[in-house]
Amino acid sequence: MKFKINSTFRKARAGILHTKYGKIETPVFMPVGTLGTVKGISKEILQKYNFELILANTYHLMLRPGMEVINKFGSLNKFMSWNKSILTDSGGFQIMSLGKNVKVDDEGVTFRSHLDGSLVRLNAEKSIEVQKCLDSTITMTFDECIPYPFSYSDTEVSLERSSKWTKRSLNAYKKKSGYGIFSIVQGGMYKELRKKSIEDLSSLEFDGYAIGGLAVGEGLKLMSSITDYCTSNLPTEKPRYLMGVGYPSDILEAVKNGVDMFDCVLPTRSGRTGLAFTTNGTIKIKNAKYSKDNSPLDNNCSCEICLNYSRAYLHHLVKSSEILGSVFLTQHNLFYYKKIMKIIREAIINGNLDNLKL
Amino acid sequence: MKFKINSTFRKARAGILHTKYGKIETPVFMPVGTLGTVKGISKEILQKYNFELILANTYHLMLRPGMEVINKFGSLNKFMSWNKSILTDSGGFQIMSLGKNVKVDDEGVTFRSHLDGSLVRLNAEKSIEVQKCLDSTITMTFDECIPYPFSYSDTEVSLERSSKWTKRSLNAYKKKSGYGIFSIVQGGMYKELRKKSIEDLSSLEFDGYAIGGLAVGEGLKLMSSITDYCTSNLPTEKPRYLMGVGYPSDILEAVKNGVDMFDCVLPTRSGRTGLAFTTNGTIKIKNAKYSKDNSPLDNNCSCEICLNYSRAYLHHLVKSSEILGSVFLTQHNLFYYKKIMKIIREAIINGNLDNLKL
Repeated sequence: MKFKINSTFRKARAGILHTKYGKIETPVFMPVGTLGTVKGISKEILQKYNFELILANTYHLMLRPGMEVINKFGSLNKFMSWNKSILTDSGGFQIMSLGKNVKVDDEGVTFRSHLDGSLVRLNAEKSIEVQKCLDSTITMTFDECIPYPFSYSDTEVSLERSSKWTKRSLNAYKKKSGYGIFSIVQGGMYKELRKKSIEDLSSLEFDGYAIGGLAVGEGLKLMSSITDYCTSNLPTEKPRYLMGVGYPSDILEAVKNGVDMFDCVLPTRSGRTGLAFTTNGTIKIKNAKYSKDNSPLDNNCSCEICLNYSRAYLHHLVKSSEILGSVFLTQHNLFYYKKIMKIIREAIINGNLDNLKL
Repeated sequence: MKFKINSTFRKARAGILHTKYGKIETPVFMPVGTLGTVKGISKEILQKYNFELILANTYHLMLRPGMEVINKFGSLNKFMSWNKSILTDSGGFQIMSLGKNVKVDDEGVTFRSHLDGSLVRLNAEKSIEVQKCLDSTITMTFDECIPYPFSYSDTEVSLERSSKWTKRSLNAYKKKSGYGIFSIVQGGMYKELRKKSIEDLSSLEFDGYAIGGLAVGEGLKLMSSITDYCTSNLPTEKPRYLMGVGYPSDILEAVKNGVDMFDCVLPTRSGRTGLAFTTNGTIKIKNAKYSKDNSPLDNNCSCEICLNYSRAYLHHLVKSSEILGSVFLTQHNLFYYKKIMKIIREAIINGNLDNLKL
């Protein structure tokens, strides 16, 4: 896997990530396809909108459909019929979010499946093995995710564990041309620990660096400050991925801080709950004021939904819990996200990122 | 609206229905779009699969979104962005299925909305008015639907009422070029009453005749017998529509009995519950035996779903309650129904309908 930065504007970068499936322009937003499907959106639409990279989840996929099934197909790509890149989360974040049902020890984690309650063990080697089975284009190292707020000393202990797991992940990973492995910077809200994390990781051979443990309730200012601190200390020539972010304005801020990659459930989950992103802000389509509104979701949008359907019709679909209500809003939202990523990229190249507002 | 029969084989007919939106080849299957949306399927797919006529429901649409909204758009076609023909059910069947919440008198029916419990009145004139507001390509007359079994004398009383409502419906309807109005043959399981119904209706100027009150639990043999009896007495030159039917084999049987038009929720509803129609029978995709099956739903099918996805992947989507599970199975099922209608039509034209099995 190769990464080339074509253009910069202050800390912001416009680049291209080359994988076995082709080129991915950065900054890039990855639609979330947890279970091997971007909820409600067929691959035809994703391809039409030029999404080159989606995210899937190790934790969810190892439980369902399970690796025996994926093995039979040879890869998650073949199973889901997707011939573009896939980045897989290592499972750490999902497991930690199970709360009481998880036991963490120095070697790994034991948890109860949210599907059948069975006990499952996951550690660095197993996570990498699952991601190998999925044939993930970009593998993430396995680490421990901490809640917010979290004390300095607890964060320090957790970071030490994460750094060890990260090294074990890398040792278990076999490099292949066109594929890559990213490690994850942790250290909570403590810059000193973030620095230590970056030092631990930078000494090893990774294809990119994720910034984890943010967007967990710390607020935009602190998130931006930690992001800025991390990118200032991370290797310049490798892609940076801010996990789980976010709102268009957060993405813009993070790009200005030197981040190249993003994922978030917002455009898809919002689509399923009747929230649409537009150039004039978000719209709650269930609101009664849209019931007779014959204008499109967004007058400045050229997606099929805005070209074909009115707010009134979408209001009717969503109010009636029709499948197409979810499908159409998700489709529009993904188109919107793709569009703003293009606008951001062009603003970097054209040197007018300062004037851009989202 | 014009109807031309191009070819016949015994009682079966291959024809073309001409409406303001173009040609509709018969025998035709109408996907059900109750609320102004064929559940889970965008118009792009319907158009790609050459569906020229869908069904929508007066009862549901008058409650939601309501005629005030449709009025603003000028037609259901414009509201839902569909530029092909629409047949609308008159509301009678849906209202009767509300059971205890309905009061029928000689003038019309009063019922409680299933949405907010409010009292609503519907009669022949109102049903035609709503269908006019929807700008239905094919309007259905308003009648009383009866349960099964139902006594001769009760059926006779109901039929008399239905015949009066039918005349009132026709009086309230304004003819327009490219549009049409169908009446509905009632009379339960009594041929004598069916004959009376047909005599009542045939004396009036309708563009087509529906056969109502069947597929209500009477069994295939009785349904076929009544259908056969009705078509033998209906005018030859007008299209016949068997309401709410059905399984592919039922459709084939009814075509042999001289029916031209069909609607049923089967392909769409089955799609949402994990049942797929294939050339080798139906498949319950949730069945564990499909969890690792890398063959398509139907080896003889060329729909996008069968060309792209395995049974194992569809099993995974449906088991995980993913939106695309419903969407993909519905899409395949509609493709299948469209295909069998084409096969049936060609078999009529080629004179080998006797050899066809579905």
